[in-house]
Amino acid sequence: MGVVVQKYGGSSVASPEKIKNVAKRVVQEKEKGNSVIVVVSAMGDTTDELLALAKQISKNPPAREMDMLLSTGEQISISLLAMAIKEFDYPVISLTGQQVGILTDSSHTKAKILKINIDRLKKELENDQIVIVAGFQGVNEFNDITTLGRGGSDTTAVAIAAAINADRCEIYTDVDGVYTADPRIVIDAKKLKEVTYDEMLEMASLGAQVLQPRAVECAKQYGVIIHVRSSFSYEEGTAVKEACEMEKERLVSGVTCDLNTAKIAILEVPDRPGIAYKIFSALAKANINVDMIIQSIMRDNVNDISFTISESDADLALEITKGVADEIGAKGVKFSKDVAKVSIVGAGMVNNPGVAATMFETLAEEGINIQMITTSEIKISCLIDASSAIKAVKALHKKFNLS
Amino acid sequence: MGVVVQKYGGSSVASPEKIKNVAKRVVQEKEKGNSVIVVVSAMGDTTDELLALAKQISKNPPAREMDMLLSTGEQISISLLAMAIKEFDYPVISLTGQQVGILTDSSHTKAKILKINIDRLKKELENDQIVIVAGFQGVNEFNDITTLGRGGSDTTAVAIAAAINADRCEIYTDVDGVYTADPRIVIDAKKLKEVTYDEMLEMASLGAQVLQPRAVECAKQYGVIIHVRSSFSYEEGTAVKEACEMEKERLVSGVTCDLNTAKIAILEVPDRPGIAYKIFSALAKANINVDMIIQSIMRDNVNDISFTISESDADLALEITKGVADEIGAKGVKFSKDVAKVSIVGAGMVNNPGVAATMFETLAEEGINIQMITTSEIKISCLIDASSAIKAVKALHKKFNLS
Repeated sequence: MGVVVQKYGGSSVASPEKIKNVAKRVVQEKEKGNSVIVVVSAMGDTTDELLALAKQISKNPPAREMDMLLSTGEQISISLLAMAIKEFDYPVISLTGQQVGILTDSSHTKAKILKINIDRLKKELENDQIVIVAGFQGVNEFNDITTLGRGGSDTTAVAIAAAINADRCEIYTDVDGVYTADPRIVIDAKKLKEVTYDEMLEMASLGAQVLQPRAVECAKQYGVIIHVRSSFSYEEGTAVKEACEMEKERLVSGVTCDLNTAKIAILEVPDRPGIAYKIFSALAKANINVDMIIQSIMRDNVNDISFTISESDADLALEITKGVADEIGAKGVKFSKDVAKVSIVGAGMVNNPGVAATMFETLAEEGINIQMITTSEIKISCLIDASSAIKAVKALHKKFNLS
Repeated sequence: MGVVVQKYGGSSVASPEKIKNVAKRVVQEKEKGNSVIVVVSAMGDTTDELLALAKQISKNPPAREMDMLLSTGEQISISLLAMAIKEFDYPVISLTGQQVGILTDSSHTKAKILKINIDRLKKELENDQIVIVAGFQGVNEFNDITTLGRGGSDTTAVAIAAAINADRCEIYTDVDGVYTADPRIVIDAKKLKEVTYDEMLEMASLGAQVLQPRAVECAKQYGVIIHVRSSFSYEEGTAVKEACEMEKERLVSGVTCDLNTAKIAILEVPDRPGIAYKIFSALAKANINVDMIIQSIMRDNVNDISFTISESDADLALEITKGVADEIGAKGVKFSKDVAKVSIVGAGMVNNPGVAATMFETLAEEGINIQMITTSEIKISCLIDASSAIKAVKALHKKFNLS
């Protein structure tokens, strides 16, 4: 007997039939005697359809009105799921972000949760209601609707689990757990029973889009164990938690590949103080996240500076960079979208310098040239030619015995 | 300089193009120097599409969840209209029923407005914002979303105009005013410059669906003059107000026809006290509005009782009536959907018994049999065969010199 938070993504509620399937699973959980809170995303492509509608009206719609628009997607799915559960004759109530008391800051379209007032949630659970909560949304201090950004429903689920001190937090998605590599690329990729928050964070930010990084950060901060499972099967998924006792010996937990990346190089940048600041503050102002950065060794008082950004930001980043390059008197700007970031992730690689060497060796054996390298305590990433990405992932998966 | 409330119906905002057209009209009003509040319905068929979605989940969805679902329709259109107005570079903000402070009772899917807390509305107007309000919706005392029933956006507009003491309340629709008869039936039907609240009420409830009766009642109660206009032209429409000085002499203001009606007759009902109560309370419990009622003259201690209901309620009403008929020992139940209610409406017909006679005479001249009659102070309705409806409307329009 306890409180269980379940989160179902857009693909799990993409049609009335799928909503009925989710309702069945929710009812099964309720029948175990648990209090159940269900967080739901918008149905399938709803968010994209609403975005397309807005684009027909305005090229640059005001963010507050975008949130007003996009939040309807989840409102539709919570009401439909509540109807479907009612068909099983269970007491059920749906709540919007406003009704469930999710207070956010005012950064429309990418708001952060500040606080959850759980009074209503508790009251409804005490009345034995199954509570369906709209993911992805909240209200700011002015009672204006905000959204948490793409995939924000994961964050909603974790934040609610933390606020209500839930016994279990399950994130249902269309894959049945976290794998050692993308099973579409590496056939014998293995499902992991457990990963640490940090490993998951690195994997999430590296293109393995099972869980939103923000949700994982929130879970880490509040110690919420996340169970990643599939809504289409009853298999145990992957637990995301602080430390994985079971697999302490594991050096590398997974190999990831991110094709959504582009490289910009500024050639022959004069070596003066404040130059790097000029470049990257201009990009930051435009809200562009820079990922890898390399500054080449100086010769003749000039440097080459290379960095990567996500492909969707590439055009804007290129325009800004060209402007700054002119201003600071650099020789020119080079640009490529045909790059991929291949990474290995593992909590066990801390204090294990041999892992990096093995990675470089593996790529060399495959004849793959490394363009850039970044490392963190639990991750090593190499930027390589996009056409070599699949070969690299397969080779690394094999080398680190992940099958 | 004043406060203007404009309401645009679903057909006026049915597409991005039409929304842009409405935005233009709103901005034109703002440019006159007025404060502008715009009440909007859901786009075109959105409400029907959402209803269809719900029906795929449940045959009898809970009313609270229906309101959660349906209210998204208006939320979509207010955000899109706000985006379209922003394109003209005017300050604009959209508000849901909850945000605008519309407090209703808890009768989900047909809630009544109890109170409007205009604090936020006033604040936004003081900040020179054009305020876009979601029609059709509010919240009850528990902060649950309610809807006001079909066409409730008219009521929202009038209630807001009353609460904020607006200088003008304009209801934009796809016709450009109130006519002496449906112009699709009577080619030379004339647009009325003015009608009284009572005349409009009778016309609205008789199938001339220009304004919702509840909106007119609300306008009457608070003395809000409604201007009915077309969103596709700039012509002056019809003013709905207390008394029409200009046209005092007018006996009959219009002829209406309602095909959305069905007749049920219970044959040979034993004449005992409480029988009528039994029949009509059973229908009332099922929320079925009974319109005309006739009890035939008693013979051999039995009566025939006939009544009409709207066609959408007909199947349920028939089922209930058959049950009651069995119970009270009536001989049987007859049923017909092939009926029409033709009515003449006019504030001038009070104390003018000749009008009724003229109506009956006209129908007789056309060889049309009258099945039922009801009258009010300003209206006479006759139930006739549906196939004669158009002939009847044309003949009455001509007889009362309405062209």
